[in-house]
Amino acid sequence: MAKDMTLLWGSGSPPCWRVMIALEEKNLQGYNQKMFSFEKMEHKSPEVMNMNPRGQLPAFKHKNYVLNESYGACMYLESQFKSQGNKLIPDCPAEQALMFQRMFEGFTLNQKMGDVIYYNWKVPEGERHDSAVKRYREALCAEVKMWEGYLQKVSGSFLAGKTFSLADVTLYPTIAYLFRFGLSEERYPKVAAYYNSLKDRPSIKATWPPTWLEKPQGQDVLKDL
Amino acid sequence: MAKDMTLLWGSGSPPCWRVMIALEEKNLQGYNQKMFSFEKMEHKSPEVMNMNPRGQLPAFKHKNYVLNESYGACMYLESQFKSQGNKLIPDCPAEQALMFQRMFEGFTLNQKMGDVIYYNWKVPEGERHDSAVKRYREALCAEVKMWEGYLQKVSGSFLAGKTFSLADVTLYPTIAYLFRFGLSEERYPKVAAYYNSLKDRPSIKATWPPTWLEKPQGQDVLKDL
Repeated sequence: MAKDMTLLWGSGSPPCWRVMIALEEKNLQGYNQKMFSFEKMEHKSPEVMNMNPRGQLPAFKHKNYVLNESYGACMYLESQFKSQGNKLIPDCPAEQALMFQRMFEGFTLNQKMGDVIYYNWKVPEGERHDSAVKRYREALCAEVKMWEGYLQKVSGSFLAGKTFSLADVTLYPTIAYLFRFGLSEERYPKVAAYYNSLKDRPSIKATWPPTWLEKPQGQDVLKDL
Repeated sequence: MAKDMTLLWGSGSPPCWRVMIALEEKNLQGYNQKMFSFEKMEHKSPEVMNMNPRGQLPAFKHKNYVLNESYGACMYLESQFKSQGNKLIPDCPAEQALMFQRMFEGFTLNQKMGDVIYYNWKVPEGERHDSAVKRYREALCAEVKMWEGYLQKVSGSFLAGKTFSLADVTLYPTIAYLFRFGLSEERYPKVAAYYNSLKDRPSIKATWPPTWLEKPQGQDVLKDL
């Protein structure tokens, strides 16, 4: 029982979900946890700010070591619990290199996804431009096509090959988020197949965003992408 | 001699510099390398695109494993050459957690720095707003103050404590870039002290951007930040 760990999280947030998947994969169940609502701005509440002065979720702690950055938390958990649960960094240098390459390319996918999905939230009304929205959508479309190509070429069911790895832990929530926001399964069949093939993996099923289960219909911002 | 490695790079680019510092720290000198000019748009040349279809530098390869993402390359090099050169991931769990936390917070610093420094380059003329520039500058100022606070509190000379680690490998080039673009040493004394204290570290000195050596005077975009 991971009683020396605490996770503050919000439902549907890819960064929170990453850490939850990593904890499941490493058999670190039973940690202290509390869900906060983004809609109610609870990520800016004193309880969260106290653990994460950036006012962001997740806020995560092992003993008194703070790991609020989701990639950092995943790397740390794998490093500290190497031989517990599933090994998340492949030994094979070729797979390991591909894993690191894809993991960090994931930041670009996240960035481009955020540019589109959070546009109105990030850009004040007087600064919005249709031309910017169009450019961001084109950039995200090109990016998702790139991942479609990666999944077409990879030899194995996972992002870095034959083994489920930190690339999947960190990228799966982002990819699920794309579909939650309406990405077309027809237009990106390899990305969709990857998304669907992992839905029932125990670590992913156990941590599926509760607000998505309650309300299975997502948004359609990315429908025509 | 690291003859099975190839690095295509550009002078002054923090992502390129990270990989070069990591290679020095791991005693991996003698790799194949070629410098390209961003000014001449050589990062979009066929030679670069062939190794990195994103048309970005660095482009890095070990054997035939591609690691174009600078964080990925650094992680990979440490993992594959653990016992060679300097160990870049501390064993102590507290230092290791702090290292991962700072490393990935570095993405936020990079992002906010880029929002300011590359504003005119990223935003087409018709979409520019003084209000956006002001907001980005305020966000970067708050971010650099946060790092000033981190360096005030840390017990040791490095970002994660007493040991030079991947946090320093990945963040030092970003911090040097801030000063290259005019950040005030007086207003951020701890960040400046950190920057100056590592200038003569062999891995950093050996990889100092050649264009900065040729032309010691940088820009002053961040002078009043």
